Amino acid sequence: MIITNRLHSKSGLTALFLTLAAATSLADEGMWLFNQPPRALLKEKYNFEPSTAWLDHLQQASVRFNSGGSGSFVSEDGLVMSNHHVGADALQKLGDKDHNYLRDGFFARTLAEEKRCHDLELNVLVSIEDVTDRVNAAVKTDMIPEQAFLARRKVIAEIEKESLDRTGLRSDVVTLYQGGQYHLYRFKRYTDVRLVFAPEQQIAFFGGDPDNFEYPRYDLDICFFRVYENGKPARIPHWLRWSRAGAAENELIFVSGHPGRTARLLTLAEIEYQRDVLFPETLAWLHRREVLLTAYGARSEENARRARDDLLGVQNSRKAREGGLAGLLDPAFIASKQAAERALKNAVAQDPKYANARDAWDRIAAAQRVISENAPMHRLLESGRGFNCELFGIARTLLRAADERPKPDGERLSEFRESGRASLELNLFSTKPIYDDYEQLCLADSLTFLAERLGARHPIVERVLVGKSPRQRAAELVKDTKVKDVAFRRKLYEGGKAAVDAARDPMIELARAVDAEARAVRQIIETQEEIKRQAHAQIAAARFAIQGTSTYPDATFTLRLAFGVVKGYDENGKHVPCQTTFAGLYERSREQGGRPPFDLPERWIKARRRLDLNTPLNFVSTADIIGGNSGSPVVNKNGELVGIIFDGNIQSLVLDFYYTEEQARALAVHSSAITHALRRVYGANRLADELEGRRRR
Amino acid sequence: MIITNRLHSKSGLTALFLTLAAATSLADEGMWLFNQPPRALLKEKYNFEPSTAWLDHLQQASVRFNSGGSGSFVSEDGLVMSNHHVGADALQKLGDKDHNYLRDGFFARTLAEEKRCHDLELNVLVSIEDVTDRVNAAVKTDMIPEQAFLARRKVIAEIEKESLDRTGLRSDVVTLYQGGQYHLYRFKRYTDVRLVFAPEQQIAFFGGDPDNFEYPRYDLDICFFRVYENGKPARIPHWLRWSRAGAAENELIFVSGHPGRTARLLTLAEIEYQRDVLFPETLAWLHRREVLLTAYGARSEENARRARDDLLGVQNSRKAREGGLAGLLDPAFIASKQAAERALKNAVAQDPKYANARDAWDRIAAAQRVISENAPMHRLLESGRGFNCELFGIARTLLRAADERPKPDGERLSEFRESGRASLELNLFSTKPIYDDYEQLCLADSLTFLAERLGARHPIVERVLVGKSPRQRAAELVKDTKVKDVAFRRKLYEGGKAAVDAARDPMIELARAVDAEARAVRQIIETQEEIKRQAHAQIAAARFAIQGTSTYPDATFTLRLAFGVVKGYDENGKHVPCQTTFAGLYERSREQGGRPPFDLPERWIKARRRLDLNTPLNFVSTADIIGGNSGSPVVNKNGELVGIIFDGNIQSLVLDFYYTEEQARALAVHSSAITHALRRVYGANRLADELEGRRRR
Repeated sequence: MIITNRLHSKSGLTALFLTLAAATSLADEGMWLFNQPPRALLKEKYNFEPSTAWLDHLQQASVRFNSGGSGSFVSEDGLVMSNHHVGADALQKLGDKDHNYLRDGFFARTLAEEKRCHDLELNVLVSIEDVTDRVNAAVKTDMIPEQAFLARRKVIAEIEKESLDRTGLRSDVVTLYQGGQYHLYRFKRYTDVRLVFAPEQQIAFFGGDPDNFEYPRYDLDICFFRVYENGKPARIPHWLRWSRAGAAENELIFVSGHPGRTARLLTLAEIEYQRDVLFPETLAWLHRREVLLTAYGARSEENARRARDDLLGVQNSRKAREGGLAGLLDPAFIASKQAAERALKNAVAQDPKYANARDAWDRIAAAQRVISENAPMHRLLESGRGFNCELFGIARTLLRAADERPKPDGERLSEFRESGRASLELNLFSTKPIYDDYEQLCLADSLTFLAERLGARHPIVERVLVGKSPRQRAAELVKDTKVKDVAFRRKLYEGGKAAVDAARDPMIELARAVDAEARAVRQIIETQEEIKRQAHAQIAAARFAIQGTSTYPDATFTLRLAFGVVKGYDENGKHVPCQTTFAGLYERSREQGGRPPFDLPERWIKARRRLDLNTPLNFVSTADIIGGNSGSPVVNKNGELVGIIFDGNIQSLVLDFYYTEEQARALAVHSSAITHALRRVYGANRLADELEGRRRR
Repeated sequence: MIITNRLHSKSGLTALFLTLAAATSLADEGMWLFNQPPRALLKEKYNFEPSTAWLDHLQQASVRFNSGGSGSFVSEDGLVMSNHHVGADALQKLGDKDHNYLRDGFFARTLAEEKRCHDLELNVLVSIEDVTDRVNAAVKTDMIPEQAFLARRKVIAEIEKESLDRTGLRSDVVTLYQGGQYHLYRFKRYTDVRLVFAPEQQIAFFGGDPDNFEYPRYDLDICFFRVYENGKPARIPHWLRWSRAGAAENELIFVSGHPGRTARLLTLAEIEYQRDVLFPETLAWLHRREVLLTAYGARSEENARRARDDLLGVQNSRKAREGGLAGLLDPAFIASKQAAERALKNAVAQDPKYANARDAWDRIAAAQRVISENAPMHRLLESGRGFNCELFGIARTLLRAADERPKPDGERLSEFRESGRASLELNLFSTKPIYDDYEQLCLADSLTFLAERLGARHPIVERVLVGKSPRQRAAELVKDTKVKDVAFRRKLYEGGKAAVDAARDPMIELARAVDAEARAVRQIIETQEEIKRQAHAQIAAARFAIQGTSTYPDATFTLRLAFGVVKGYDENGKHVPCQTTFAGLYERSREQGGRPPFDLPERWIKARRRLDLNTPLNFVSTADIIGGNSGSPVVNKNGELVGIIFDGNIQSLVLDFYYTEEQARALAVHSSAITHALRRVYGANRLADELEGRRRR
């Protein structure tokens, strides 16, 4: 599953520090900006010239799932298609002890049955504006890094607030090329999002962890939602028409989605940090979480349900990271990285125009060392690995909101900016279920982790545990806090600092007890990031001048256009065909003896004889995609939907660092599989008709 | 499952550093030496006076499984009973792709069907001799620690060799009280050990990881072997008679087995090292292994079979360590530890007799710091976490055997002593199956771990990987080495250094490439251990003088006697009865919906109506047991077998550090359950008759 790593998206900090990416010639490479599309490349290689209208339509038919994925509008009545595993967060939250929608699926036979999600926010990118000059003008060259960071944060807040006030649209300034450019993205937000259809997880994620990131595959990884406005299905101007034929071998296809983060042209120092520190650290954390959640889930069916989505996310991240680390440990990659860096450094050294970039690599390396020293404490205190549970996150938000909201907008911690307020409140007041036992489990483990990392005698640990064991402390905190009550949260949020202080809520007081250190270490990291941002901007400018501007920035979980062809590949001397079929699904289940996760849902066993087994199920293409692209529509030259991205193969896991099309492939569900299954397996003809434009909702 | 941690027993180093233990008054505490039994305590508390014959009989009816557990003779024809999970290592090795004995069980209907194990060695303790004076006499007070270590190793080798030559018995000098005493243990070895009976793992380990270390429990955790001599069942002088009634509530019982390691009176500095460094490190490694093996096993039925025993061991250690760490992080424990240490230090300070012990705690703390600095490298290189696969272990043994065997016996690395040669060769020439893909999996992960820990640019990592990625390197090493061939191993072992050098086997060359560093770091650790040993001996002497000698040493995986009563306990305001029944087994499966690991074997579903459901299945007692006691016989005052230890409850996991009988309990299978199940579920009347003394084999 190629969702963005929610581990990180939950944290305040972007843990990866990206650099400028250059397109190699005539490969199907690139995660292109919609306002800087690869026109020349498409023309030259495929003799295809997308019109502005074509691009604009695809852009506005694309949907971002803020829980960490992509999707698209597939009817004029607000129907949105994404992956089952992108919808998983919403499915999990809708479940209760009598309903395991994430495992068992859901189908609304009428509009009235569509189930409103607790806190799902969908974004549609409406416009892009380059605000680089204004951002950079606010940062004076004589400012020390601390000042520069504050000045940049302030001007970004101003730009966003002005835009929000003027347009009413969610407005985010996005840092591209590691600081080489700043673009203002305006999004239409949808927050009344209702669940329409999800298949059983058995078929959506057939093969489970063992087959995740593998190919051939046989997954119906789809999920449908509908956006509402004013209590009615929203009327959507841009939506994708359904291709009746679907994707065909060797066909040129496009993917419009939200790749999370790439790190393709980090400096060598940054890459080595990822290889030697960040990836190992992250994997150790994921291993720990996977074991914890698996063991908890094994104790009862209900436990398994409660931990289900988190566990899937952890397993998925773990497998993705393992692949990434294997790439980082490939000496050939490091050698090519070194060579490229040396070449650019040499070019920079030879031209006085780039004098200011000459020591940029050293400045980045120095900043990276400071980050490396402080990152462990940052992860514990600020990213919250030391207090990893929902209730702590809520408590900290309440504590900090009280401190930050009275400040001028430009001086607040970035997550408390006015431009992000609506989204923050959607999360803070979410009615999603919170389970005491699960919170205790996670918090006790996390407090143990804190004690392990700092040592039990560290003053922070002693202050946090107040003479109790991690298990005792977690139990009492979860039991005694009132922040699980949404009304209480609203009261404190609206009551401000006086209300928060007066509440003396134990979880809020815990957040307060570590807040000074958490903010301090965050400031250190943010300052070093500013140093790197400036250095990267100088490198980027030199690279643009030397290598040309027909390129794309590293991924930033914002909308990008990728392209490629539907194409198999060779592996271990054998050809892997580009496409699988329903017949292959049944065969794969049979060869594994039907044992989980290769078991088929009852419905699929019964429906077999009603299916055309030659119907394509999954296919692969050379499109340049990564985590976050899950749920991205795959369209043909006519802009018709021919499939939906749901994964990459094992060989694609290095795409975080470099593009390769020898074996790396994007995996998609074929459009034919979707309508065929909806009609023949689920009897969901209304939904299939809506997709195929035969009827309205 | 309370097996000893094979993670550690495979390594050359004892990772825990024990100290003197004092018995608190009139608790059911203690892992007593058979030559220093708790006569006074038993007399005072239970008015029971075991005769020397009673003790000698129990001692010689007890069996040590060198793969990490305990057992007992239960017939005069060499029948040995242990736990299924103790037999697991042998069951795993006997399996192949068509036979999953570990999962499915085994039953030999005739002697001829009994299956010889690949490399199982059983030991019976025949005699104990105190050699403290001779060991200490060899170490002069003016020796520096390096010399002292060598002198002590030399004299121990001499003592063992003399004893072996004179008696033909395996002779081990065991360090007790951390160096306070040295006893020579002589064992009769059995190496022709055949599998007689194992139930399905589903019933032996019913409830799996979720119910492991929990109570109430419903596990038939048994396994039977038979020892042979000269191709015939051995005639056994001491074996345990079967009690027809089995254990009863409030009955005094005894446990004779091999607790692995306790750490009850480590100094505070050593405990803090365990809490802040060793346990977290070990848990991180176990998490990593658990995820690796689980993911591998999920890919196919055959993979699952190959990884099965390792995975069970890892999960078991993980759960045990989690419990241990929770105990270490309990401030009440640390406070009592501090108080006890302060009291003893004060007593020592006040009496000039103990002048040499006054700074012993500081010397231990200093040595612990050096160990702490070097332990990470030691774990990677010498304990082999950087090269964690069977083939590397074999290769290193061949390499080192060639270097060590020409040396005088007393100067060799301890594992190459003549006294241990037979056991070493049994392992080295084991015909157990080795799977290339599994070896590659483990080695690739382990090389990745090495690179993560040292950094990819570390000279050792570069030397090990020779410009390849960990996966590539592991693949070629496993593919190209010949040490998987037993005949090749024999040739090299017998051919000595010339043969080993000439072979240029890539895995042996890998071992050679890190051997200098591995030996160097081992020497550092061994020297510091000698420093600690001397300091602990001084503390021990003072403690004996001040607190009395009626005590027991920390566990050392040698035979100990524990005692207690069959007794339930209170938990969360409810009473947990001391005993469960077959009825409870079926109920537990039902309440979990029969989902794994709460599913019942087909045979048990069918046999239900034939069973007396009120038959006791498991019971608990206050006996002081830990990992390594698995399979220990539980006997009554008459020396009759009333049960077999198989686990401790969650509350018992702190027994590594201190004894408590409020809730901590030893778990055992009731003797009645065993014969009842053998007859009614398995139709194994011959075996049941042999146990009950109704017939010979």
